[in-house]
Amino acid sequence: MSELLEQLRKAVGETNVRVGDAVHADYTHDETLTVSPVVPLALVLPGSTSEVSEVLKVASERGVPVVARGSGTGLSGAAVPVPDGILLAFDRMRHILEIDVENQVAVVEPGVTLEQLNGALAPLGLIYPVSPGEQTASLGGNVGTNAGGMRAVRYGVTRHHVLGLEAVLADGTVLRTGGKFVKCSTGYDLTQLLIGSEGTLAVTTEVTVKVQPRPTETTTILVPFATLPEVTHAVPRIVASGVNPTILEYADALVLGSITRAAGLDLGIPDDIQQAALAYLIVVLEESSVSRLDEGVERLGTLLGELGALDVYVLPPHAGASLIEARERLFFVTKAAGADDIIDAVIPRAAIPDYLARVAELAEAHQTFVSGCGHVGDGNVHLGVFQPDTEKRKALTREIFLLAVDMGGAVSGEHGVGTEKAPYFLETADPAALELMRSIKTAFDPKGILGPHRMLGAETA
Amino acid sequence: MSELLEQLRKAVGETNVRVGDAVHADYTHDETLTVSPVVPLALVLPGSTSEVSEVLKVASERGVPVVARGSGTGLSGAAVPVPDGILLAFDRMRHILEIDVENQVAVVEPGVTLEQLNGALAPLGLIYPVSPGEQTASLGGNVGTNAGGMRAVRYGVTRHHVLGLEAVLADGTVLRTGGKFVKCSTGYDLTQLLIGSEGTLAVTTEVTVKVQPRPTETTTILVPFATLPEVTHAVPRIVASGVNPTILEYADALVLGSITRAAGLDLGIPDDIQQAALAYLIVVLEESSVSRLDEGVERLGTLLGELGALDVYVLPPHAGASLIEARERLFFVTKAAGADDIIDAVIPRAAIPDYLARVAELAEAHQTFVSGCGHVGDGNVHLGVFQPDTEKRKALTREIFLLAVDMGGAVSGEHGVGTEKAPYFLETADPAALELMRSIKTAFDPKGILGPHRMLGAETA
Repeated sequence: MSELLEQLRKAVGETNVRVGDAVHADYTHDETLTVSPVVPLALVLPGSTSEVSEVLKVASERGVPVVARGSGTGLSGAAVPVPDGILLAFDRMRHILEIDVENQVAVVEPGVTLEQLNGALAPLGLIYPVSPGEQTASLGGNVGTNAGGMRAVRYGVTRHHVLGLEAVLADGTVLRTGGKFVKCSTGYDLTQLLIGSEGTLAVTTEVTVKVQPRPTETTTILVPFATLPEVTHAVPRIVASGVNPTILEYADALVLGSITRAAGLDLGIPDDIQQAALAYLIVVLEESSVSRLDEGVERLGTLLGELGALDVYVLPPHAGASLIEARERLFFVTKAAGADDIIDAVIPRAAIPDYLARVAELAEAHQTFVSGCGHVGDGNVHLGVFQPDTEKRKALTREIFLLAVDMGGAVSGEHGVGTEKAPYFLETADPAALELMRSIKTAFDPKGILGPHRMLGAETA
Repeated sequence: MSELLEQLRKAVGETNVRVGDAVHADYTHDETLTVSPVVPLALVLPGSTSEVSEVLKVASERGVPVVARGSGTGLSGAAVPVPDGILLAFDRMRHILEIDVENQVAVVEPGVTLEQLNGALAPLGLIYPVSPGEQTASLGGNVGTNAGGMRAVRYGVTRHHVLGLEAVLADGTVLRTGGKFVKCSTGYDLTQLLIGSEGTLAVTTEVTVKVQPRPTETTTILVPFATLPEVTHAVPRIVASGVNPTILEYADALVLGSITRAAGLDLGIPDDIQQAALAYLIVVLEESSVSRLDEGVERLGTLLGELGALDVYVLPPHAGASLIEARERLFFVTKAAGADDIIDAVIPRAAIPDYLARVAELAEAHQTFVSGCGHVGDGNVHLGVFQPDTEKRKALTREIFLLAVDMGGAVSGEHGVGTEKAPYFLETADPAALELMRSIKTAFDPKGILGPHRMLGAETA
């Protein structure tokens, strides 16, 4: 142990290896509601790729497990330390290395946060559009989980925006993939393989992302409907209309009420509409000119009328921004309301009403309250599960996940597998796929030191 | 041999195994100019996934190589048979299995062509927007090469549109990946790994693609510039402006002349402009309404004036469509003009003028004529190489590829590696990446029967 720490200190510097009480509580967990904090054997803060490489060489030689952590905003437990392992954190690797306006590309260290990157891009009229709820999330972490978020309906997810990576393999070898180009047909796409691998294949040390013109005009539209099926029926029509919304969210009346209350937001919806509306659609349109935006709003308004909307509220800019911000904070509102778990699953978009109806039946059968909202354009449903009894809760969430897979979906749309969803992932994955994934894991990390006890390395339920 | 044929006939039916003269010449090559036709040991035409599985089981047990072929429109030799192996072709697997309008997804067999799919989608107001030059290309082949094409500047390439695959491994195991959803963070992304693997990892038997609203309004704009650097300087400005072109192509005066002549197209450009213009930009805008299109054309026109365009020609619809069609056929025009090789490389978009200038120097040093055009929005350059001496030509093309890699690019943007680019790929790839790719290949295909002598399995130069 003391020899290990000595080697680590030599690799990254005395003050960048911390043990015991010197490990701040923030590093002992992510945001997952169901995980307990764990103090790692050592918190290691590398300052460069070569320091990451040195640390991994040491870990590999000694067979010490390594967990990589972004900003700790994950929701699957993937960044939670193990007591006998190193926790790699990237507080010292937070430099934006390059913003290349001509090529519309940014190159960043893994610790760079979304708000930091977009803060630097905004004055240049550019945006990195992937937007998981939490803007303090890091790009390295986003690569790990293939982060999605509300804007995916227009922009796709992390894997659609990362063009290249530098990553360090378990044995310290530095790997480079991709580059400043969108098109590439040159060998197997290791960039894509690493994205979403949750730190189990390699440690990301540099990310090259595509950036794009920042839309100048934006508007938020709130649309009450009498029932959820009407909302989900409307969604493919909106997508097919070509108005190309940036955000297309569903919130039930309960969720909308709780986020607006929590944000102190009065959207000015008349009482009679509020009483008739059981489900809301939140639509954001973004364009590069006022005339385009106006045209989009008009077309959308006409369409929504035809689709049975009770009314259409084009929110004043401030209220619109506040509503989206409040929606982003729904996780914390649900947490504050006493949720015991917050999960996501993905299903084909059109299956949402059926899925949610069956989830409601499951919830009732398990005598558990489940709240819902979702990135309805993507078929990505988020559920708050209120059931303090762990066994009862797990029995229900298992059925919720199995149902998603059964309906043609997957265990996670954007939170990832980590430790918390691993049993359901292992239970439902295609056996041939699982075997290939295990072989890939072995090829990248023969000693199995990266991301132990998560994803493929987890115990089955 | 006769025992093998008997097993194959049992697997797919008597008439679907062909040998010797019964193998039509079309099956002996792809469109690559530098490959010689090869008659396979047996041409096998499976009719279903289970037949593919049976064939691969037989091949695997006997250690017989297998090459999978789409429509044979590839430009890297990846689909050229080997004399001692099976050629799998998908003439019998050309069914569109499902067009799911609600989920905006299509599920197709690998032999379905782009024109077939878009023919079925058009009446529904939908489009599969990936458009490599050749519309007879198959979806299975597109997955193999990660096909790109002119519309990639707006829509990305094949890997941005494929949501899931069914594929058969070398030993006959059927693998399922992804599904009817865009967001997924559930294990390593095998869909992405298979895309672009050129038939060396598995044989694709079903493709699930995202489809989207078909733009209703389109216009083609031809923009003469005095010099190439002015064109490439204009490109990032156009991309940054938010007009979001579907096509952004560069053609030098020679290329434009040859494609318009070949198509018998008079674009009505005055003589003085024709004489002053050394480089042309071709821009296509597509929108869902006339007012949006008009606005885009106006903004683009103003911008192009500021960027030094000699003039801006908004082509009449018929001429615009003909120009794009003619550009699509540039490969055949260049071939007819006597090109000995037609290659593609990718570089960061902003490096294009420098790259092309250095290619011109290389061409001169090698006393070889090289013509050029490119998907300039993507940094994807296509070059016709006129040099009948194989050794001389290979020496030049090698330097052209090495230069691309040296300037931050890659050996192929969309044609793929196959047999023809493999030596340059193997020479320039990151060694750690190459080693991982070899391990992945072994995990998928331990006996190495799939796609022999191509990509990783090729000899080095």
